[in-house]
Amino acid sequence: MTDIFAKYAGLAASFDTVGRISPRNPFGVVIERPLSATVGLIEGRETLLFGTNNYLGLSQSTAAADAAIATVRKEGVGTTGSRIANGTYALHRELERRLAETFQREHCLVFSTGYQANLGAISALAGKDDILFLDADSHASIYDGSRLSAAQVIRFRHNDPDDLSRRLARVKDHPGAKLVVVEGIYSMTGNVAPMREFADVKKEHGAWLLADEAHSFGVLGAHGRGAAELFDCEADVDFVVGTFSKSLGTVGGYCVSNHPGIELIRLCSRPYMFTASLPPEIIAATLASLTEMEARPELRTTLMENAHHLNHGLHALGLRASPHVSPVVAVTLGAVDQAIRFWNRLLECGVYVNLSLPPATPDDNPLLRCSVMAAHTPAEIDRALDAFGKVAQELGL
Amino acid sequence: MTDIFAKYAGLAASFDTVGRISPRNPFGVVIERPLSATVGLIEGRETLLFGTNNYLGLSQSTAAADAAIATVRKEGVGTTGSRIANGTYALHRELERRLAETFQREHCLVFSTGYQANLGAISALAGKDDILFLDADSHASIYDGSRLSAAQVIRFRHNDPDDLSRRLARVKDHPGAKLVVVEGIYSMTGNVAPMREFADVKKEHGAWLLADEAHSFGVLGAHGRGAAELFDCEADVDFVVGTFSKSLGTVGGYCVSNHPGIELIRLCSRPYMFTASLPPEIIAATLASLTEMEARPELRTTLMENAHHLNHGLHALGLRASPHVSPVVAVTLGAVDQAIRFWNRLLECGVYVNLSLPPATPDDNPLLRCSVMAAHTPAEIDRALDAFGKVAQELGL
Repeated sequence: MTDIFAKYAGLAASFDTVGRISPRNPFGVVIERPLSATVGLIEGRETLLFGTNNYLGLSQSTAAADAAIATVRKEGVGTTGSRIANGTYALHRELERRLAETFQREHCLVFSTGYQANLGAISALAGKDDILFLDADSHASIYDGSRLSAAQVIRFRHNDPDDLSRRLARVKDHPGAKLVVVEGIYSMTGNVAPMREFADVKKEHGAWLLADEAHSFGVLGAHGRGAAELFDCEADVDFVVGTFSKSLGTVGGYCVSNHPGIELIRLCSRPYMFTASLPPEIIAATLASLTEMEARPELRTTLMENAHHLNHGLHALGLRASPHVSPVVAVTLGAVDQAIRFWNRLLECGVYVNLSLPPATPDDNPLLRCSVMAAHTPAEIDRALDAFGKVAQELGL
Repeated sequence: MTDIFAKYAGLAASFDTVGRISPRNPFGVVIERPLSATVGLIEGRETLLFGTNNYLGLSQSTAAADAAIATVRKEGVGTTGSRIANGTYALHRELERRLAETFQREHCLVFSTGYQANLGAISALAGKDDILFLDADSHASIYDGSRLSAAQVIRFRHNDPDDLSRRLARVKDHPGAKLVVVEGIYSMTGNVAPMREFADVKKEHGAWLLADEAHSFGVLGAHGRGAAELFDCEADVDFVVGTFSKSLGTVGGYCVSNHPGIELIRLCSRPYMFTASLPPEIIAATLASLTEMEARPELRTTLMENAHHLNHGLHALGLRASPHVSPVVAVTLGAVDQAIRFWNRLLECGVYVNLSLPPATPDDNPLLRCSVMAAHTPAEIDRALDAFGKVAQELGL
């Protein structure tokens, strides 16, 4: 009997190496419970959370919690069914209507997770005769969606519209549809896509454009609609995919578009059809978060102030932080063991960030992924910066 | 610019054909709200729900709702993070511990949906040098998981251990691991897998066995552990995958196993790693449902009595219902237009079932998929049978 786990001998060995340096599993951190949006109990200590996707702090929204509570009392804890069977409640349709309104688009489909939104949209939009053009730093859900589609996949250099243009030109006679997929903000580095340049390229070559605004929704643009709004090119983005598990603080995903054909996805996209729909209380909480996000544009202002604060502070400490300001700040370190030690000491000093190790990182450098929330106070950011400074000194950086 | 939706012209045409017969979209039913486990408001009418996966009625469990409410107050509406980053709360670990205990296995991984549990387990367990053996009637999530893995896929005849054995014999010299995937209960027909015979075959050929007990957990076996428990062969099932969105009434999925290697999936399975974890209130509701399921074995007795009642009643009406008794009963019809008319008239008579049309059905016959719950009263089942009888007569069947 062949050992089905033999293929992971290398992975197991790498993980053992991490274990020899790290007093705790960096990928097995347990938040005993959240104490607020910005503080969680980890290893019995009050820990500042600087490694989440809770950009607006809405996971702890009272309005969202109240909506969930009222709904769970009336409608129960789940639907037990697919959207195309018994799993569409009035609330699911209301959320689709509200999101379409927010994005000023005609159509919206709600999926059970953001991961499944990318899987479902990309695998249904791109067929075997089509070509997908993916940014080289695309999220796993985009790669997995591409794999589920039978389309040819062409990667282009990260955030490089010229490279995309050259690659599109090379297949100009290909008869199939060409779908370009980019992200508004990249989750590891905080890089923002030059969306308008991408939109120009897609128009020039007669391609279609899908923007995953998972990390930019609620963050960029005057109304929080993401990078496409920020760069004033929404009309040229054909499909927007996003998630509820970042700015809106819940779980789930969506795809909005003005193309009526998108409704056909409800009848052919397997990640949409063959999964239970979201429980009504999650939908209600998401609706409440969306209302709160729209009613409080000052959350975005505070978020960007906090992003400046953290980014400038990290640079002032002499650390290799992202060159641009974004709610996600990557601190690049020179070596894996250094990154592991830095991460552990930060946690022991009461600051949680995300540890990312090669090969999962862009450019194969280990990094500490930090993120700010609108809910962080300046004092909390200063405390995080103090911890960074202290640990950098300890490690002789 | 190539029309990206041109590939769906056939699908759109088929859907238009349905629309010419059907006064409503059979795949777009909206439950305005559930009134109880067994009754929902559809088109303003109180409608009996006979097409859900709510086998034990626990989507409307008061204990589950109370647990969700208490937790949402304390912990918020979501985690905004992956299980390997900021998305593991103490509750996620507690649910993994409880599920492992329920299944008497060492290890348990909780996923954000049941769909992603199959994607995540299968794509990580089967690598490019391995072979997957799939039952021909496998759920879409099993096929999609296989597609994400790079493994060779061999299909065997539905519920046919001899056919599986022959196909395993043909590749006996293949050096990779062989993973057989079967389901405890098949969702469309209610067919139960002959799990012990499959276990014998997998042992004879040195293969591994994964059982998807999505529809059988909480339903089959003395403790509700599914087909493997019913047929007393749990020791020979290597991996059990399941969902919270059927018997437990919430949403999410899991994989349990005694093989310690399964823990490596946390570090390499993309559908596990690259998605937000379930909100704490969903985990709390699921824990409460699990406790209720275990405390009330009589729910399973009532469920099987109700299954008998519905199955025998449909046979007595002269309809082509499933030959065996199971909580899922398929009523096979001779023609698509007849099935569409039957489904519409049932709904107009206040009975909701699921309509399944070829090519999505086994054997390419249209069918009405009915399911019972423990929560159905004998009087509700009689009312559903009356509606079936009335409509059959109207349609001259």
